[in-house]
Amino acid sequence: MRFLIIGGSDAGISAALRARQLDDAADVTLLLKDDYPNYSICGLPFLVSGETPEPSMLAHRTRAELLAAGIRIRTGTTATRIDPQARTVTTVNPAGHEDILEYDACLVATGAESLRPPIEGLHLPGVFTMRWMEDGLAIREFIEKREPRSAVIVGSGYIGLEMADALTRRGIKVFLAGRSPSVLKTVDEDMGSLIAQELVRHGVSIFSGVAVESIQQEGSGLLVLGRGVEAYGDMVLVATGATPSTDLAQGAGASLGAGKAIAVNQRMETGVPGLYAAGDCVETYHRLLGKTVYLPLGTTAHKQGRIAGENAVGGDAHYAGTLGTQAVKVFDLVIARTGLNDHDATLHSVPARSVDVECTDHKAYYPGATPMHVRITGNPQTGALLGAQIVGSRRAEVAKRVDICAAAIHAGQRVDELTAMDLSYTPPLSSPWDPVQVAAQAWCDKLS
Amino acid sequence: MRFLIIGGSDAGISAALRARQLDDAADVTLLLKDDYPNYSICGLPFLVSGETPEPSMLAHRTRAELLAAGIRIRTGTTATRIDPQARTVTTVNPAGHEDILEYDACLVATGAESLRPPIEGLHLPGVFTMRWMEDGLAIREFIEKREPRSAVIVGSGYIGLEMADALTRRGIKVFLAGRSPSVLKTVDEDMGSLIAQELVRHGVSIFSGVAVESIQQEGSGLLVLGRGVEAYGDMVLVATGATPSTDLAQGAGASLGAGKAIAVNQRMETGVPGLYAAGDCVETYHRLLGKTVYLPLGTTAHKQGRIAGENAVGGDAHYAGTLGTQAVKVFDLVIARTGLNDHDATLHSVPARSVDVECTDHKAYYPGATPMHVRITGNPQTGALLGAQIVGSRRAEVAKRVDICAAAIHAGQRVDELTAMDLSYTPPLSSPWDPVQVAAQAWCDKLS
Repeated sequence: MRFLIIGGSDAGISAALRARQLDDAADVTLLLKDDYPNYSICGLPFLVSGETPEPSMLAHRTRAELLAAGIRIRTGTTATRIDPQARTVTTVNPAGHEDILEYDACLVATGAESLRPPIEGLHLPGVFTMRWMEDGLAIREFIEKREPRSAVIVGSGYIGLEMADALTRRGIKVFLAGRSPSVLKTVDEDMGSLIAQELVRHGVSIFSGVAVESIQQEGSGLLVLGRGVEAYGDMVLVATGATPSTDLAQGAGASLGAGKAIAVNQRMETGVPGLYAAGDCVETYHRLLGKTVYLPLGTTAHKQGRIAGENAVGGDAHYAGTLGTQAVKVFDLVIARTGLNDHDATLHSVPARSVDVECTDHKAYYPGATPMHVRITGNPQTGALLGAQIVGSRRAEVAKRVDICAAAIHAGQRVDELTAMDLSYTPPLSSPWDPVQVAAQAWCDKLS
Repeated sequence: MRFLIIGGSDAGISAALRARQLDDAADVTLLLKDDYPNYSICGLPFLVSGETPEPSMLAHRTRAELLAAGIRIRTGTTATRIDPQARTVTTVNPAGHEDILEYDACLVATGAESLRPPIEGLHLPGVFTMRWMEDGLAIREFIEKREPRSAVIVGSGYIGLEMADALTRRGIKVFLAGRSPSVLKTVDEDMGSLIAQELVRHGVSIFSGVAVESIQQEGSGLLVLGRGVEAYGDMVLVATGATPSTDLAQGAGASLGAGKAIAVNQRMETGVPGLYAAGDCVETYHRLLGKTVYLPLGTTAHKQGRIAGENAVGGDAHYAGTLGTQAVKVFDLVIARTGLNDHDATLHSVPARSVDVECTDHKAYYPGATPMHVRITGNPQTGALLGAQIVGSRRAEVAKRVDICAAAIHAGQRVDELTAMDLSYTPPLSSPWDPVQVAAQAWCDKLS
């Protein structure tokens, strides 16, 4: 059984490992455009900041470990065409040599590319995007060689925020220019304003609700211009999102779905016989909405890849769905969210009401208690828990508190059921009612 | 409507607050033996260690806040008899003055007393137990006046471990003598050995599997003697568990249930008309076992009190059940557990299999990653998630990771469903598969 995987990032590697785990006779081959199999692209900001000193540290596994798992790896190999009738993939290497590989099952795990918004001057030297190892290495090299003193980041999503932290850590003055009215639009506005405070406290200047139109050379640096923004930086990072890489799958007859990503079912099948797709290139089933969305995340790519790998070797696994659970550390703050926030609920016409509480992460009488802002969103008609957002100190177990809610939402629990759960307590770490339960109680009280 | 509550610790106060919240016409009166309404007895070790400098800081709420909520408080008032026919409670104050109070609903929230095991010499000066404010204050005073250089702690449960930490922090050499073969018998033995290592690393000496038989005066200090132990300390703390305070309820006709605690249903009713009971004095419904056990915990007391308070004023709330979720910090380590461990499963004849994994709390390439030991227990026949135990650094979000499992168990999830949950990830805080999911996958792999 020949399983050919196009792409060696999270989804591709997860599929390869799972297939080999379940079927040690399977011939599993991984095709990689670049030379970095199984690298954590989520770690690139830390490579730039210097917190992760060596690029090689970003490998989830070494190449030797992958080979030991029985996975064949072809680096510098670009797949140019899939022929689903013949079940072949045509590849080309950097020298221009073509090759044709046969498969029984093929996984398209081509990921996504950085969105290139309609801004003039994206081609200028000193303008970067951030998605793949090459991007991270290029930024790192630029910083080391050119010693920029200022940077403009276009985009105030996860990557923009992490890079604001990373560049500030390198002594670079950061201007953050975002289109949405608050930073990190995946959380509601008042949570965003708490993050903005943290950024400003660390010297970042923020332009919100702006539309960047052009980037121009100005002396040795760059001018970023547009509606509501006029900023100068020695470098510019454009971090405005991702667009799925679908050409190869489309060429093989796969359809596109949500967000113009490859349409797949919960078995990660494209509908083209023998052709699977997973990761940042596909649409993602949303467990709460009961429909697909485009929500490319590393966690999802791992899960979908594993499922594709299992099914490719004859299994029957189904992707259980995303809740859009995300966490990010920005300086000393952690922001995490799961499920639907007010904005999501409005967008998808789900009845929702949110309640906010402020409390400390643990009993105030024990040293080190820090304030925590918790928002719980529920469906006022059914009582269902829909979402949670928390902002708090990086030492306050914010992310795993959101995960308690993610587990509850995954299992279809109501808000009042969250308050009844037997969660852990010791004064240095929590309170007899965990902050998420305090918020859930407040939600129930407000509703009644 | 007159709601009389006997006991002003977690269950009593929660009931009073809930009753007043739902019915602001209710006449809610709280009877307190001591003078410390609504004090966090879980905070006593930190009062002893000095981390919490002032006893008043241990109040969850000030007396003024309780009064502002419309709760009447009678301190120094001991209830001596409940007459359920007449619906009266007889009280006595320190001066010996008797009083008779009428009620429509009465809650017995008398808590528990420190277990006094059959050890000779428990009455000697310098021998302490630890349950109520008076105990904490007495130990603190002894340390300040007598400056003990060594202490023997009898019992290696939560309180014993927290006090070993607290006394060591005060510069006192601690000998810990426990009956079970490993410390903290609420976790499995190999987890206990990780805790023992942490204790020893901080200078605590441990005697395990011993039976203390007597305590004798020896010069200005005390000798602790028994099978497998012969230890000298300037003070001794006996922390061998708790025994429910049931006399008052029994006198009123209430029955005893599991652990000789007051029998109650999930509405926290004793069966005696108008008489509720909650907190450390009652048996507790175990959600996984489907039967009652004796498992006195602050979190449970809060929940049960709230339910009793709601029902006392005409509500219909039901206690959802405990999972025995607990967390404790011992020096720089956190140990947390939920559900059934191997020992529990054997005891209650539940089919169970456990799998252990060691991994880091977050991606190793980001600074500060620490090892984490995770054990997942599941039912091999049904696939149901039964329990989780984690030992890791206090900065590793150990407690809230166990709570993810607690939420999943509460909702009746299977082990494989835990692996499918959309949990948060960012390299400084986790991995694409959270450690609990890595363990859950290992469990599923081992089973198949």
